[in-house]
Amino acid sequence: MNSAEFRRHGHQVVDWIATYLEEAEKYPVMSRNQPGDTLRLLPEEPPAEGESMQRILEDFERDILPGVTHWNHPRFFAYFPANNSGPSILGEMLSAGLGVNAMSWQTSPAATELEQRVMDWLKILLDLPTAWHGVIQDTASTATLVALLCAREKATDFAANTAGPAAMATGGALRIYTSTEAHSSVTKGAKIAGFGSENVVRVPTDKDHAMDPEALAAHIAADLDGGLRPCCVVATVGTTGSTAIDPVPAISEIAERHGLWLHVDAALAGSAAILPQMRWILAGCERADSFVFNPHKWLFTNFDCSAFYVRDAAHLEQTLTINPEYLRTDRDQEVHNYRDWGIQLGRRFRALKLWFVLRSYGVAGLREKVAEHLALAQKFAAWVDENPRWERLAPVPLNTICFRWRPEGVDDEEQLDTRNKDLMDRVNARGEIFLTHTKLAGKFTLRLAVGQTTTRMEHVEQAWRALNEVAVV
Amino acid sequence: MNSAEFRRHGHQVVDWIATYLEEAEKYPVMSRNQPGDTLRLLPEEPPAEGESMQRILEDFERDILPGVTHWNHPRFFAYFPANNSGPSILGEMLSAGLGVNAMSWQTSPAATELEQRVMDWLKILLDLPTAWHGVIQDTASTATLVALLCAREKATDFAANTAGPAAMATGGALRIYTSTEAHSSVTKGAKIAGFGSENVVRVPTDKDHAMDPEALAAHIAADLDGGLRPCCVVATVGTTGSTAIDPVPAISEIAERHGLWLHVDAALAGSAAILPQMRWILAGCERADSFVFNPHKWLFTNFDCSAFYVRDAAHLEQTLTINPEYLRTDRDQEVHNYRDWGIQLGRRFRALKLWFVLRSYGVAGLREKVAEHLALAQKFAAWVDENPRWERLAPVPLNTICFRWRPEGVDDEEQLDTRNKDLMDRVNARGEIFLTHTKLAGKFTLRLAVGQTTTRMEHVEQAWRALNEVAVV
Repeated sequence: MNSAEFRRHGHQVVDWIATYLEEAEKYPVMSRNQPGDTLRLLPEEPPAEGESMQRILEDFERDILPGVTHWNHPRFFAYFPANNSGPSILGEMLSAGLGVNAMSWQTSPAATELEQRVMDWLKILLDLPTAWHGVIQDTASTATLVALLCAREKATDFAANTAGPAAMATGGALRIYTSTEAHSSVTKGAKIAGFGSENVVRVPTDKDHAMDPEALAAHIAADLDGGLRPCCVVATVGTTGSTAIDPVPAISEIAERHGLWLHVDAALAGSAAILPQMRWILAGCERADSFVFNPHKWLFTNFDCSAFYVRDAAHLEQTLTINPEYLRTDRDQEVHNYRDWGIQLGRRFRALKLWFVLRSYGVAGLREKVAEHLALAQKFAAWVDENPRWERLAPVPLNTICFRWRPEGVDDEEQLDTRNKDLMDRVNARGEIFLTHTKLAGKFTLRLAVGQTTTRMEHVEQAWRALNEVAVV
Repeated sequence: MNSAEFRRHGHQVVDWIATYLEEAEKYPVMSRNQPGDTLRLLPEEPPAEGESMQRILEDFERDILPGVTHWNHPRFFAYFPANNSGPSILGEMLSAGLGVNAMSWQTSPAATELEQRVMDWLKILLDLPTAWHGVIQDTASTATLVALLCAREKATDFAANTAGPAAMATGGALRIYTSTEAHSSVTKGAKIAGFGSENVVRVPTDKDHAMDPEALAAHIAADLDGGLRPCCVVATVGTTGSTAIDPVPAISEIAERHGLWLHVDAALAGSAAILPQMRWILAGCERADSFVFNPHKWLFTNFDCSAFYVRDAAHLEQTLTINPEYLRTDRDQEVHNYRDWGIQLGRRFRALKLWFVLRSYGVAGLREKVAEHLALAQKFAAWVDENPRWERLAPVPLNTICFRWRPEGVDDEEQLDTRNKDLMDRVNARGEIFLTHTKLAGKFTLRLAVGQTTTRMEHVEQAWRALNEVAVV
């Protein structure tokens, strides 16, 4: 592809994206494809000779697009959002064009220093401790794994890194505490980091699905009595199931008392703290050892971009550093080499898209958007509360409503589960909206998460209408 | 930013990238920035109000670009390449526009199925076993970590995942074998996965820097005698230092004899195997349990895109699976959910750019490019060999030449190291070329890796000229 062709097709792709984002509403939100539908359209052999970009783009639209679930759709209410914006896409385009690897300072000084600056800007936006050190990770899963590794090395004085299981098994198993509602990445991270899933203690939650700090204290005491080694607490601000907010002030006190690493997973919720009136959700987090939230979830920055902070950068670096000859430079003592702040050696230049978003929206623009989403969620929650055919199953501190259908005369829990699962499948099949589920206190729970960039009142109203149309006996 | 603005600035960014790629040669390859040069241009506070994209793009060019090291530059010969191409950038743009998360089949069926298909295409291209199962990882570091986790769970029958150190410490420490020239990610992965760096056995290499299989066998025998548990061998096809090729046929026999997991790291070299005449580099790899190579290094696909294969997909899934309620779907038994094939939950739609590249170049186009790079490397190696002022320090089976300057009358090794380090710094400071170093057999070694998409004979000639101009006593 020569330069003229790149320009021509580049303009074509930009126009396609612009139209796609304008007209996202015309697509069914969740792809209607059946397993294998895309696969069978794709030849089994790669093409022997190059093909024209015109043809590739046509095939993309004809063969790939029907298999896409539209995360940018204003009526995408599933999971948690992974939202997006024009400035972010432009930043990602430039980053792809530059193609730099941000593994070391030398491999692109501006990539490292812009990352440092935008991570400092986010501290200001969320009112996080000024002394914290930030780095962009791909996902909160990775950030949580990194936090667990830091905790492991703190507890073993860096002996786990060298001696492995010998250091981890001696003196009692290292224990991680997190709530029954914590994200699956905590257990996955514990498995990866060699703690073992049996050493993840699932602390019970209160009626609002937030961690019970007394139960946490009791578990730690029991483990100490049993000769085990408490190591780390992972608190969640905004659980994936219901956006429950663990009581971090009480949890941080317990963690400090026992010298445990405290990691706070605020993957979705963190973005809400850009609103001064929402800062309360991060109360106590200033005492954490590490903290993560995802600008790719709710700060209009396209996936992936996860903001990870630690109190002690030297500890993080010592946990993950490598220093092979072929990467050494004269500057290593003066600069950040972010390869030593995460799992991977290679790193994309993600700071660019985040910088574009923060500057293009400005603080005021970001606040306006997030506040609108919060208000829409309250509106939807009120509709649920006012209608006896529906039941709300959790508080709505943020953008996600947990609820279920209560068909008249149906009280059996098993039947309610079946009816709600069926309702979810039917409403998703219509294509107007896409929402997903969880289980809360054993109940099949519908979740509606408001967070796509273009979601407005009309879309939430349409969701409510669609649900009520489908909710017929 | 409204749709019209996105179109306008999108076209502007495409044109900027096109011009940048056309004119890459006008920049100094390595940024001349000093530490802090970018940082001090960036305001300490995020902007209160949104700013115009015009201004952001101007600031990008004025403040950020001078701090960029130009990986796309045809005279970038440092590290290993992370190359790029027009079709790849277009694919990345569309992927950013769609903003889908490819964690599960349901979250975008086409993302999963296109990934399956392009990974099958790469098997055909490299003549890898048809029964292997492929998945895209971000980097080879991650792929190697995943391989080590698979090995760990194979050795402990999945008990490490649950019991952690108790399962790993009982019956003798689990041991990993890799050469002294293996990539730093092996030790880093061993630390992350809880093996401990002391349990990574660095097997000596032969005079060509490839693993000595007899030494491997001896280490395994000694460990067995010592009550330790051999677990995994990581062989390298194309080491980072000198592109040495470990003798995988002999290594795989030893691994099989002892029931060890064999992972092959062909991060750079794998791409060369698209040439039938280069298939020999992968001899024996068909007996591996896992294999990785990076299309983002030498297959014109912008970073990140790492192709990881396993023989036993069920084992991989069992190693990494999570199944929280909020991710369950009715399709889970019929489809691949690639979240269970890697570390992270969230996954970008990387298959799109790879599909664009494979179709736009076609097999013939890819082969032509890689063959050209190989020929250029041979040319450069011949110049070194023919000139008594220069000394070649390793064979050149691929794209990388390891060499040093031999100033007349200097024979002292320490002096040679100093002189070559100084020469590298001086030639890089000129800005015409960028190359980096390693140490081979203790000697400071210059590395020149040919692999940028636009690198042609004239650029390699210019490198040779620049080196000779700087190599003056």
